[in-house]
Amino acid sequence: MDNDARSGTFITLEGPDGAGKSRQAAALAERLRGLGRDVVLTREPGGTTLGERIRALLLEISSDEHDPISDALLFSAARRRHVGEVIGPALERGAIVICDRYADSTLAYQGHGDGLPIDSLRELTEFATGGLWPVRTVLIDVSAAEGLTRRQMGAAMDMTRFEVADAHGMAFHERVRQGYLDLAAAEPQRWRVVDGAGSPDEVAQRIWSALADLVG
Amino acid sequence: MDNDARSGTFITLEGPDGAGKSRQAAALAERLRGLGRDVVLTREPGGTTLGERIRALLLEISSDEHDPISDALLFSAARRRHVGEVIGPALERGAIVICDRYADSTLAYQGHGDGLPIDSLRELTEFATGGLWPVRTVLIDVSAAEGLTRRQMGAAMDMTRFEVADAHGMAFHERVRQGYLDLAAAEPQRWRVVDGAGSPDEVAQRIWSALADLVG
Repeated sequence: MDNDARSGTFITLEGPDGAGKSRQAAALAERLRGLGRDVVLTREPGGTTLGERIRALLLEISSDEHDPISDALLFSAARRRHVGEVIGPALERGAIVICDRYADSTLAYQGHGDGLPIDSLRELTEFATGGLWPVRTVLIDVSAAEGLTRRQMGAAMDMTRFEVADAHGMAFHERVRQGYLDLAAAEPQRWRVVDGAGSPDEVAQRIWSALADLVG
Repeated sequence: MDNDARSGTFITLEGPDGAGKSRQAAALAERLRGLGRDVVLTREPGGTTLGERIRALLLEISSDEHDPISDALLFSAARRRHVGEVIGPALERGAIVICDRYADSTLAYQGHGDGLPIDSLRELTEFATGGLWPVRTVLIDVSAAEGLTRRQMGAAMDMTRFEVADAHGMAFHERVRQGYLDLAAAEPQRWRVVDGAGSPDEVAQRIWSALADLVG
């Protein structure tokens, strides 16, 4: 399940909750559709039956029952189905797939944030996804403090499973942010780091510039 | 989380559904308790909150939604909690832990049965369990045909998640049985293969003989 074997274009957005990923993903999809492109906009768990049940399970269990290895395994099971049922078929028919969070979230949160070994998490991800990685990943970078403020303001925002991590406090979010920046630095051909500060339109323009060589 | 670092004795029973594992595990626990030993008798998912929810989820989803990689990831998440909440603490206090199925079931069913790479499943299991393997594993060996007959007769028996595999038919069960025998042959110091034919008392005596050097 190698990206080269597919005709579509797999793009992911990463960053902390509150960075504006969902809004930016929607704006990007709209812009591309305006250009007549076939776009699939999705986010984990992507509406698969198993994925939604796993998401419900993660939200139900109490915070003291969470442990990063169990979480990584459950996210990977949901990701597996998301790839098999949504992302893979869309790429096979040639669509642009824009996914709000993907495997890099596991590396950043359970790896850099919770301290699990990155190599083990990469192996887990390869196993779960069959080796499917995005051709381009845009990190919407905001400071940990700014991300926290935005999450606190975003009361109407859907709660995601990653917000469980808020129990960890600021030091955790600092590690996640630095982890994202390290992941981006290690694979510069795949990643683009975009400043999340400013108006949504300003951020959208930066994201567009980061993708223009692929989809412009 | 190495077995050597614990004072307890971790024993697992493996084999197909219908081989009599649950009954034999209970008989073994009773015999050991009669000798005054501290015994914990358990089976996956072992009564952990997360494990029970995962088990319910696996039973709920339809058979065409099952895929071996998702299943392996979900079993591993449940196993993680079972080790952390039940098996690990019991071993630390010095108990004999008798577990009805453990990681070898994933190797036999999703590996040999479904064809997933054994090495990947081993890495997954190391990740999930922190490297905790039993000091002794008893395979109750019955032919695939005999196992199927016993499962069909055992209408009162609790359905387990592994029975999902019955949809695969006889060839699947033949691969699982051969897989178990191969696993046992590759690690003769850990495994003992016991003939599952005959009366429960006869099988119980064979199991006792296979464990006498450890717990007798």
